[in-house]
This record gives sequence, structure tokens and C-alpha cells, in this order.
Amino acid sequence: MNYKNFPMVPRVIFGRGSFNQLNDIIAPKRLNIHAPFIFLVDDVFKNNLWLTSRIPTSYDDRIIYVSAKVEPKTSQVDELVEDIILSTKERPSGIIGIGGGTLLDLAKAVSIMLTNEGETKDYQGWDLVKNPAIYHVGIPTISGTGAEVSRTTVLTGPEKKLGINSDYTPFDQVVLDSELTKNVPTEQWFYTGMDCYIHCIESLTGTYLNTFSQSYGEMALQLCEDIFLNNNLSKIEAQEKLMMASWHGGMSIVYSQVGVAHAMSYGLSYLLGVKHGIGNCIVFDHLEEFYPEGVKTFKAMKKKHNINLPKGICSDLSDKEFDIMIKISLSLEPLWENAIGKNWKKVITPKKLKELYQKM
Amino acid sequence: MNYKNFPMVPRVIFGRGSFNQLNDIIAPKRLNIHAPFIFLVDDVFKNNLWLTSRIPTSYDDRIIYVSAKVEPKTSQVDELVEDIILSTKERPSGIIGIGGGTLLDLAKAVSIMLTNEGETKDYQGWDLVKNPAIYHVGIPTISGTGAEVSRTTVLTGPEKKLGINSDYTPFDQVVLDSELTKNVPTEQWFYTGMDCYIHCIESLTGTYLNTFSQSYGEMALQLCEDIFLNNNLSKIEAQEKLMMASWHGGMSIVYSQVGVAHAMSYGLSYLLGVKHGIGNCIVFDHLEEFYPEGVKTFKAMKKKHNINLPKGICSDLSDKEFDIMIKISLSLEPLWENAIGKNWKKVITPKKLKELYQKM
Repeated sequence: MNYKNFPMVPRVIFGRGSFNQLNDIIAPKRLNIHAPFIFLVDDVFKNNLWLTSRIPTSYDDRIIYVSAKVEPKTSQVDELVEDIILSTKERPSGIIGIGGGTLLDLAKAVSIMLTNEGETKDYQGWDLVKNPAIYHVGIPTISGTGAEVSRTTVLTGPEKKLGINSDYTPFDQVVLDSELTKNVPTEQWFYTGMDCYIHCIESLTGTYLNTFSQSYGEMALQLCEDIFLNNNLSKIEAQEKLMMASWHGGMSIVYSQVGVAHAMSYGLSYLLGVKHGIGNCIVFDHLEEFYPEGVKTFKAMKKKHNINLPKGICSDLSDKEFDIMIKISLSLEPLWENAIGKNWKKVITPKKLKELYQKM
Repeated sequence: MNYKNFPMVPRVIFGRGSFNQLNDIIAPKRLNIHAPFIFLVDDVFKNNLWLTSRIPTSYDDRIIYVSAKVEPKTSQVDELVEDIILSTKERPSGIIGIGGGTLLDLAKAVSIMLTNEGETKDYQGWDLVKNPAIYHVGIPTISGTGAEVSRTTVLTGPEKKLGINSDYTPFDQVVLDSELTKNVPTEQWFYTGMDCYIHCIESLTGTYLNTFSQSYGEMALQLCEDIFLNNNLSKIEAQEKLMMASWHGGMSIVYSQVGVAHAMSYGLSYLLGVKHGIGNCIVFDHLEEFYPEGVKTFKAMKKKHNINLPKGICSDLSDKEFDIMIKISLSLEPLWENAIGKNWKKVITPKKLKELYQKM
């Protein structure tokens, strides 16, 4: 047995308003005045002075606004890296991602690709990154993905949707300021929060689970149930708790894996560009046979918050399109093995997946 | 409001038998063949080939056995550092602590004092360490103190029992192999486990608590209650869960503090040399007025495991001796403020503390 020696985020600050301390945190990391900080910021914050006026830019620092409406792509990372290289006098002092999973994953990937040659798609997989990334900071503005703490950055490439999993991927610093999540629209809040809930269910019922991941997963799950089913939390409490749920949920994956919902959702995302959070929800809603208790609770949460998931998104697909989704999904072997066990191929056939996708 | 930017242990490996991977983990950290690794090992493992034969020594590496029968002292750290400097050709590649809280704290302190001038006692306090410590690894062989994850190393100096709290104190690497705890005697297991339980109670009921610390504290508390009150855990499960409880309990202190039990136990420890775990238990047993629910559950745990705490340890003390303990205890202002609030001095008087100590 060989255990993973997991890299944890080495610095974390938690607190309402801690975003105000960003300058104190990053200033000592500035290499020189020609090596700027690059802030990758979700473009929903463009013209939002409450946030942008507090981004501590100096010298040649740049803010690059990025839309999170589409899932992050390897080609997008390549373009950002090229733009940064061409526009800076020296290699940047650091990349600071401000946003949800999309922006956080972009920040991680860009920081890696600034020190590693070639194209981003070549690094999708496990432990393919050779050189340490440049200093990178993650500042979530929506909670649930666990991207702030994970060892991966999930990207859609020309051939696959797959993470860059490496010891250099995790952030060097995370700022957990729940106030930044205060204006998230309800549906987005729900879908992203459910990403956390769903990966806890997948982790806790998986075959890979050990005590380390179990304790984090149970904590995150309890927090999710508290947030999405109970009525007695203040808004601030709910925001703070969801931020911690996302953190612990991400840690739960360390010695575990996600499962059926993620494996199938990757297919939807690859073919149809369905965003990760909502994609997981669309899939999970149909997974009673794999996660009976989890799906029951999920439906209760959905009802409580009046969430109407899109229906029939696969109804007009051709056989060829189904095959593409099925191929993407089946390629995620560790997810299936975690969910079903070593003999998963006996249960999960292309036919089975097609039947499931047809329900969605 | 200014929040602490907390340094987390950047690498952790968890798993039964993960100790076997120690060589793979530390080998890349060897600076050169003249810069040895120094293993500080609890002397209960002397002649225990099951463990010692797996300590991966090469070149000039040394194993130094240290007794954990007494609490670690600043003078002991000074002696270890001098011994290491005199016996090595170059500054060591790293310090590896293998043992309980005492050994882990010694390893942290020695790694700091190898790069910082002067005497260890001068660094007792908050953020007094100037230079980064050398690479240091913590390998707990008993669970509960949280020393494997904390930002402090608690030492008894000539004038005070106080930690070296600094960003350089946390380990660079922790190995969590619950198999190493399999031979801990029952009483020691209980006292050290209760260190975790008690600091969870102190953290969760304290005035400093925030959502970050609360989520870790609740998780650790649930694990402790599961381990010490339920009957349905296997030995291995119980060992693994206690290892995680200790980890999460340590994390709970990040944005919190311990409280009355720790503040008073430090007095016992300073004057009478009472070890930290049992000292906390002796004190906590008399703290119903501060922690009614926590003490009730503690007494149930004590009963379930047939633990008989020493009694009358303060019965022969002189007034002068009481005054020493009271002075040490009252000097721990953050602990009292966390436990009682800003006006703690109105409640916690020397007279009050003497009355409490007299019960013990």
C-alpha cells in the first residue's frame, strides 16, 4: 500500500472582511516592480466598486476580467498565458484568482503554465507538471466547488475534460472571506453548494474512503444539511458555513474520489457546455439507484429552495452525440471504481449510461 | 478587525503503515551527505525493532532518544541544539520528531533554534522567531495533543510555561500512521485523548470562536465522543479516528483558544511537573461551573474506562507554592479572555483559583 503525500494549502485566512488584508498578504511576495501581480477576476465584478476598489494593484499589476459563463478551457489558459507573457516585462510575481471554481481553476492553471513549456492540454492527467508554479492565491466568491483547496484544476481540452492533478496545483494562499459571496444569485448559490453536497455523498459512499476523508466529508455534509435544510441560520452564518463546507468537502476528496454524478456530468459539460454545478445537479437527480439516501435529501433541498432543474437537455441528441458523452464519462475510471468498485465495468456499460442520459 | 493568516502543515500523509514511506518523503530533502537528518524519538521505542528498524538512517544521520516522562523544557532544547551543532559537520537537513506532544514540541523547537540565535526561552511568546526553521517532520505515536498541526511548541522555561508561537513553528510534513499508536497504555491513551476533548470544549464554548474553528472543533468533538463513549468501533477504527480528532482539534484552535483547564493545568505543570494530558484531566474534573455539559460527559468517559485520577496533589502545598501556580495561570491572559470574556478579571481572582486548586 502506497499512500498519497498530500500537499495542503500552506496559508489560509478566514474571516468576514479578510479580503481587506490582501495587500498585506501579497506585498511581501512581490519579486520586483517589473514583476506584476495578475488578478484574474470573474467579470460579474466588473464595475462593482465595492470589490474592485479593494483589489490592491500597484506598478504594472493587471486586472483581467474573465467570464465564468463557460467552463474553463485549456485553450483559454494558453491564451491567457500568452497574453500575460507578451504584456509583462518579467515573469509575474503571482496570479490571484477571484471568483468561483472557473476563476480559481484558471488561476491555478495559468500559474502552472507560466513555468511549464508547451500546451495546457499536455498536462491534463496526473503528475505531469515538472516545474513549480508561480505563487498563486485563491479567493472564492461563491462556495461549493472545493477548488480553493484541491490538488486539481479541471479543464476542458480538445479531447477530454480532465484536471491537471499535481503537487504544484494547490494554491499557496487562500483568502476565505464569506462577505464576497453575499450577492450570489439563489440558483447559482444552490448549484454550486450542491457541488459540495454531491461530492460529499460520492466520497462518503465510495470504495476509496478512509478515515481522513470520511471525517472531512461528514463535517462538510453536516454543514450542507444545516445550510440547505434548516431555517435557523442567519444569512451571514449560512455564508460562512457554506464556505467551510466547500473547504472541508474539498479536503474529503484527498483520499477519496467523486463518483457517478461527476463522471456523467463531465460528459454533459464536454458535449453541451453545461456548467459543472448545474450539470452535477441534473445528473444527481436521476441517481437514486446509486445514492438512494443522498438523492432523497437532494430532492428535499431542491424543493425547499424552489429549484427547477432544466429537463430534456439530452432529448434531441444523436446517437453519435450520446457516444461522445459516454466515451468521456467512461474514461474517468477512478471515479467509477470509487463509486462501484473494481468490477464497475460489469455494471456500467455504454447502454446503461445512454439510458441514464436519456432521462436528463 | 485583523485576521490571522494561518500557516497550515503543507504536506500530510495519512494511512496505516504510511511510516514505511518516510524514506521516500525525506530523501529529496537531504541537502548533502554531511547534513544529516536527526531523529528525535520517544525513548519508549528504544529497542523496539518494529519501529526503530524502519527509521531510515543513512550517512551521518542520528537517532536521539528522549524521555517524555517530563514536560519539554527550554533548557532541554538548548542542550539538544548544542549537542546537534557540536556533533554534525553541517547544519542538519532536517529534524524528525517521533513520539507524542513532548517529542513533537521538542522537534519543532530544535528546528527553530538551529537557525535562530540565543536561548530558547527568549522565543517563548508570540511571533518572536526571526528566521525560518530547518525542515521538520512530525510523526505522532499517540493522539490528542494537536501538536502535529499547531503553530506553537509549548515549553517550560525558567520563568514561564509558554509556547513559541510563530509562522515557522508548524511542521513542514506530518505522517499520520495510526499503527504507531497501537501500543499506547490505556491511561496514557485516555489522558492524551482527553487533551483533544478538553480543548474542543474550551474552543467551542469560548468567546473567540468563529465558523472556521467551530467546524473543526465540532468534528473533533464528535469523533472523541464516538471513540470514548461508544462500543462499536474496532481498535483500528478507534486509533484512526483519534488521530483525526487530534488533527481537527488542533485546527480548531487556529481562530480560537483553549480555556480554564489549560490555564490552570499550566500552573500544575510548572510547579509540580504534572504532565499536560493528566494535568488537564485533573483540572477539568473540577470545572463544572465553567463547562457543565463538557464535564458531565468527561466524567462519563472516565467511568467507562475505569480511570482513577490522582487526588490531593495540592494538599501539601504552601501558600507560596499556590501563589506560583496562580501567577503562572493568570499570566495566560488570552486563555482567560477566551473562556470568560473581556471582563474575566472580575471573575477569576487569585482567591478563586486557590479554591479551585485546593480541590485537586
